[in-house]
Amino acid sequence: MATIADISVAASINILSAFAFFVAFAILRIQPINDRVYFPKWYLKGLRSSPLQSGAFVHKFVNLDFHSYLRFLNWMPAAMRMPEPELIDHAGLDSAVYLRIYLTGLKIFVPIAVIAFTVMVPVNWTNSTLEHSNLTFSNIDKLSISNIPHGSKRFWTHIVMAYVFTFWTCYVLKREYETITSMRLQFIASEHRRPDQFTVLVRNVPPDPDESVSELVEHFFMVNHPDHYLTHQVVYNANKLSELVNEKKNKQNWLDYYQLKYARNQSRRPTSKSGYLGFWGKTVDTINFYTSEIERLSKEIAAERLKIDNNAKYIMPAAFVSFKTRWGAAVCAQTQQSRNPTLWLTEWAPEPCDVYWNNLAIPYVSLTIRRLVIAVAFFFLTFFFMIPIAFVQSLANVEGIEKALPFLKPIIEKKVIKGFIQGFLPGIALKIFLIFLPSILMLMSKFEGFSSISALERRSATRYYIFQFINVFLGSIITGTAFQQLNNFIHQSPNEIPKTIGVSIPMKATFFITYIMVDGWAGVAGEILRLRPLIIYHLKNFFMVKTETDREEAMNPGSLGFNTGEPQIQLYFLLGLVYAVVSPILLPFIVIFFGLAYIVYRHQIMNVYNQEYESAAAFWPDVHGRIIIALIVSQLLLLGLLSTKDASQSTPFLITLPVLTICFDRYCKGRYEPAFVRYPLQQAMMKDILNRTREPNVNLKDYLRSAYIHPVFKAGDDYENNLVSEDEEQEPTLVPTKRQSRRSTPFSSKYSGSSQSLPYEVDQNLQP
Amino acid sequence: MATIADISVAASINILSAFAFFVAFAILRIQPINDRVYFPKWYLKGLRSSPLQSGAFVHKFVNLDFHSYLRFLNWMPAAMRMPEPELIDHAGLDSAVYLRIYLTGLKIFVPIAVIAFTVMVPVNWTNSTLEHSNLTFSNIDKLSISNIPHGSKRFWTHIVMAYVFTFWTCYVLKREYETITSMRLQFIASEHRRPDQFTVLVRNVPPDPDESVSELVEHFFMVNHPDHYLTHQVVYNANKLSELVNEKKNKQNWLDYYQLKYARNQSRRPTSKSGYLGFWGKTVDTINFYTSEIERLSKEIAAERLKIDNNAKYIMPAAFVSFKTRWGAAVCAQTQQSRNPTLWLTEWAPEPCDVYWNNLAIPYVSLTIRRLVIAVAFFFLTFFFMIPIAFVQSLANVEGIEKALPFLKPIIEKKVIKGFIQGFLPGIALKIFLIFLPSILMLMSKFEGFSSISALERRSATRYYIFQFINVFLGSIITGTAFQQLNNFIHQSPNEIPKTIGVSIPMKATFFITYIMVDGWAGVAGEILRLRPLIIYHLKNFFMVKTETDREEAMNPGSLGFNTGEPQIQLYFLLGLVYAVVSPILLPFIVIFFGLAYIVYRHQIMNVYNQEYESAAAFWPDVHGRIIIALIVSQLLLLGLLSTKDASQSTPFLITLPVLTICFDRYCKGRYEPAFVRYPLQQAMMKDILNRTREPNVNLKDYLRSAYIHPVFKAGDDYENNLVSEDEEQEPTLVPTKRQSRRSTPFSSKYSGSSQSLPYEVDQNLQP
Repeated sequence: MATIADISVAASINILSAFAFFVAFAILRIQPINDRVYFPKWYLKGLRSSPLQSGAFVHKFVNLDFHSYLRFLNWMPAAMRMPEPELIDHAGLDSAVYLRIYLTGLKIFVPIAVIAFTVMVPVNWTNSTLEHSNLTFSNIDKLSISNIPHGSKRFWTHIVMAYVFTFWTCYVLKREYETITSMRLQFIASEHRRPDQFTVLVRNVPPDPDESVSELVEHFFMVNHPDHYLTHQVVYNANKLSELVNEKKNKQNWLDYYQLKYARNQSRRPTSKSGYLGFWGKTVDTINFYTSEIERLSKEIAAERLKIDNNAKYIMPAAFVSFKTRWGAAVCAQTQQSRNPTLWLTEWAPEPCDVYWNNLAIPYVSLTIRRLVIAVAFFFLTFFFMIPIAFVQSLANVEGIEKALPFLKPIIEKKVIKGFIQGFLPGIALKIFLIFLPSILMLMSKFEGFSSISALERRSATRYYIFQFINVFLGSIITGTAFQQLNNFIHQSPNEIPKTIGVSIPMKATFFITYIMVDGWAGVAGEILRLRPLIIYHLKNFFMVKTETDREEAMNPGSLGFNTGEPQIQLYFLLGLVYAVVSPILLPFIVIFFGLAYIVYRHQIMNVYNQEYESAAAFWPDVHGRIIIALIVSQLLLLGLLSTKDASQSTPFLITLPVLTICFDRYCKGRYEPAFVRYPLQQAMMKDILNRTREPNVNLKDYLRSAYIHPVFKAGDDYENNLVSEDEEQEPTLVPTKRQSRRSTPFSSKYSGSSQSLPYEVDQNLQP
Repeated sequence: MATIADISVAASINILSAFAFFVAFAILRIQPINDRVYFPKWYLKGLRSSPLQSGAFVHKFVNLDFHSYLRFLNWMPAAMRMPEPELIDHAGLDSAVYLRIYLTGLKIFVPIAVIAFTVMVPVNWTNSTLEHSNLTFSNIDKLSISNIPHGSKRFWTHIVMAYVFTFWTCYVLKREYETITSMRLQFIASEHRRPDQFTVLVRNVPPDPDESVSELVEHFFMVNHPDHYLTHQVVYNANKLSELVNEKKNKQNWLDYYQLKYARNQSRRPTSKSGYLGFWGKTVDTINFYTSEIERLSKEIAAERLKIDNNAKYIMPAAFVSFKTRWGAAVCAQTQQSRNPTLWLTEWAPEPCDVYWNNLAIPYVSLTIRRLVIAVAFFFLTFFFMIPIAFVQSLANVEGIEKALPFLKPIIEKKVIKGFIQGFLPGIALKIFLIFLPSILMLMSKFEGFSSISALERRSATRYYIFQFINVFLGSIITGTAFQQLNNFIHQSPNEIPKTIGVSIPMKATFFITYIMVDGWAGVAGEILRLRPLIIYHLKNFFMVKTETDREEAMNPGSLGFNTGEPQIQLYFLLGLVYAVVSPILLPFIVIFFGLAYIVYRHQIMNVYNQEYESAAAFWPDVHGRIIIALIVSQLLLLGLLSTKDASQSTPFLITLPVLTICFDRYCKGRYEPAFVRYPLQQAMMKDILNRTREPNVNLKDYLRSAYIHPVFKAGDDYENNLVSEDEEQEPTLVPTKRQSRRSTPFSSKYSGSSQSLPYEVDQNLQP
């Protein structure tokens, strides 16, 4: 087991590396040449167009003002200076609420840490159970619950503390939920007109032999929402087209690169091989090759566009339907349209940037099957991924290495190296395993068929959390102790699990402390350095950038990455709540993580990240739910731990705790969650009336018509107009139909073979 | 263990008693004097006003036509003769669909029984495991899975059969769900105008210092549903009033009784004691006493009515809001109204007869707490009720009785008595315990705060099912075998439970066979006799009936009793599915139960029961869900049973089965359940258009205004008009307000101190 000295070595290594990152960041960020790497957000907002320094040529690349080096940590107070409302304006509500997760961590854990240190550390320390036992132990273990003798009355302190911590956590959670709910409602209400306020995404439009999807959608909504329906936009299957467009863009980049290369060194025209990745095939002139490729792609793109225009197969059975009022949209999104609940599925349209276009055409039955397939796949991924982690964990144990490779013993036994191995290796090994995971989980969510990017990220985050919970948290505890407790584990029944885990928890405190330092402290400090975007930017800048626009494109501001970031934070919540009662020594490390991360991410959100979409904090119910889960897990583990300590009289008190927590969660769900799922009619009506009185003459139809066009069409200038003007000449209340059955009816209208929509739809629907 | 001979004794007893019930019924039902007991439904429908026979005086009481005694079973084909659409017309959809539960049982179990007997009985019988073991066994056990040797390849038959039975059950369930969904939608669509189609129940109207509930509701819905709002009816707290009215009615009954008594025997005026229940207090003249009591109550009722009229405290924060169109009501019921999701809760109004008035005023927070309290109470009820049952079960075991009371041995050992004890006692003891339960569960549901009687019954049924599952099914299996297997049970971990139960299941087959015969066969046959209503009717008829109206009231047709009937049927589904693979001998008994019950209840529904409300088969998702649960339980128990039989290679096949079943359930939930919860807009719109074109001039407001008045007000003639005419003079689009804050505004409208509703509401809502 690690001693305090081991921990100190690990801590100093991590503090030093974090400090090194900060210094490197401080130096790099004030170099004008890096300005676009460290302040891309301001460039994107158009508030900054070139580095602030000006003067001699060298000043464009290197900062020679030595005073500014002295103030190398002054970005920290600067990051705190912007008030929250301005931050919401600047970076969106999603980012501001994301920061509040860290703030919630601080609010929960700072008071808990203070109480734990003043109350529980003395209670734990003033025993001598460990000294009288024949176990090996360190001073860190003396601070934990392990030092209390079996059946001691002192366990009542821990039970009372468990209650205090639970009530405090719930109190903070409730206040946060309340604040964020009102922030969300205010954000939605105060915002100016947005297309998604008026629009509903309709999926699973049933096939009809006589009418196109567009006509069918129009008929259906004119009949069933006669006073509110305004216009609609069908969804085209442009997946192939956007692939072609991307390929063309990629080729164009290479062409630019080679043209620049040739321009700099005109002695030799660049050549390459025409085969796959330029590795084989016959040698060709590269510039000519790419020019011809681009020409070919342009033709293909034009052909594909023509196909999309003319072929009904490319129209998916989905549409964005816009309404005259927010009220109409709110009604349509919240109600069931058709007798068959799997047809005409309506939901709020995501923000235009948030739409995940590829998934819009998946039918209902397929969705159920996909969900099953992914559930099974995720189960296997979660449980079979454990094997390699267990292997690495066993290697990272010094005694384990010594047993496996005895000749390494003299090296390992050196104090510094031992500390390094125990402090660094387990954390890093785990981290490397986890790097590849988010992309796999994201692919899974995409396959599952969600229609917005924010929903994809939320689902990935849930999966990532489950994965981390089972593999990092439980995996580290159980597998790690499997090497210490050996036979205790095999052949145990499920209700013994809280006991077994509970017992091992105090012993794993040092492991998790090093994990927090490596993954939390150093990781956060590394985030601010942005090493990868820095290198890529300079490479691009050197090889491909010709104009300012190119330089703009070379910046990669990145985004928050909710799907990876949030589950990571949740792991710290879990660790903090589980160890709060058991080994309070962990708490200061967690508090430092939350504080550091809050400042760093606040700085990044202000200066770097460019959030692609705005979901108005739709993720908060997930965040809240997972903290509640962490709370319940901590209570169950404490129950298991105490039941092995001859403190069974405490069981009824500890069982009450999760029951109360679940009730609290149910209450919050009923009271606050609807604000994240539904849109109250009162608010919709209020905004409608306001808009009507303030801007009575705005042409909403024109405004909404082009809002939900696939982004690939927006690139082509003339295409958009082409798409939207096709049904210009129709009158608003009369809908022509091409249905065969109506063509033979005797009475005629001004449209050949058509009739008015209302009686016709009734007719049709009355047929059994 | 019971042998085939024991079973035969029990079966013959039960068949005889069932036969006796049928004969008694056949004789009693054709006596004209009992006509109102056995055919009340026809009287209530006004299709029958007196017994069919006529002639001599004696014919009014006794049937002397001896031919009709010979045809004593001809009610059975008669019960089958009415086609289903006519039955729906005659008794409502609820009753017709309730019958389909029995029909579903037949559809599932008849083919399963046939397959089980042709395939599995030979496979089980042609082994000799039991003969070579030193266990005691009977021929019945030779038909079960116990007779297969450990690790035999023959278990594959059982696994394949489990798949076949699961697929067949799911197929039947899906078809039934589909049929009933379309029956429900057709019923709702084809029905004539009903008030609940236009009405929404609004709960948790927030308190307002300046406006009454009625004004507030009117303002809110005029603003937020301006095109659709028609009228509303506030809910009065008339609980005390209806108590008084009931008390008066009760006293009136006694007065009638004594007056009749006095009229028959004028020699002595009846006297009684004025104290509680007439047991103490001073002696008074009964007729005078009741007359004065009724007078007092009449005054109190009048005073209470006056209070309700004038005191705002009697107006509850709930209202029935009616809309101009079905579309408007469907929209309002399905959407969230206010920013705070715990205020202005809207739901479909139940049918007027279905409203449970006492619960309409429970606020949201109280509802959460009530739910928690009841959950805890139900937990204790379920688990502590087990103790007496275990005690009775142990007594009902012949060997147990012999051990406890050895002097009874010579009596018990007699064959007939032994059969009687083993065949009858366990079933009856259990039944007596269960008689008092439904009323307790109903009280619990009422306390929980559901607002319609149908919802109360559904919730009670769920609880009753859980209770029966744990106490009757699991309780009988585990406690019963605890006397046979003793130590095997104590100190086992939860994942061993399927194994332990699975192992005991084959041994309990005989117990459940007798249970089915007593509870199912004899119980159903007893149901048709209606002994209790028969006696009560004749008592009332003799003592209190003076006029035809009195006689009408003395009939007690009763109703289906979904809260007790459905869980009972579900127990048979559970037993059938669990034993289908294990001991197919049980299946014929279950098939006979379903067949018999179907005929009997069809007869009762046609001739007797008078369903109080119509929920349009809203209970079917519950029925479906519980059959699915039975299916999953049967699969898990088979898994547990086989894992003790050295057939572990079968585990993966058997684990797949519940996963597939759950997927099937999820699919059904998505595909069919919305039809039972929401009301599709397409259908609402269709009916609106139809009604508009067919009856354009109907005055909906008058029609809806009095629909949702507390039944106690409907009794008083003048009161209703008084209530509904109070806001007659208001104009439809202008809403006067009494709010203080507006009274001081400079501009005035034609209402003193009021303004138009729209700008005012906006103003108010804009304040932060």
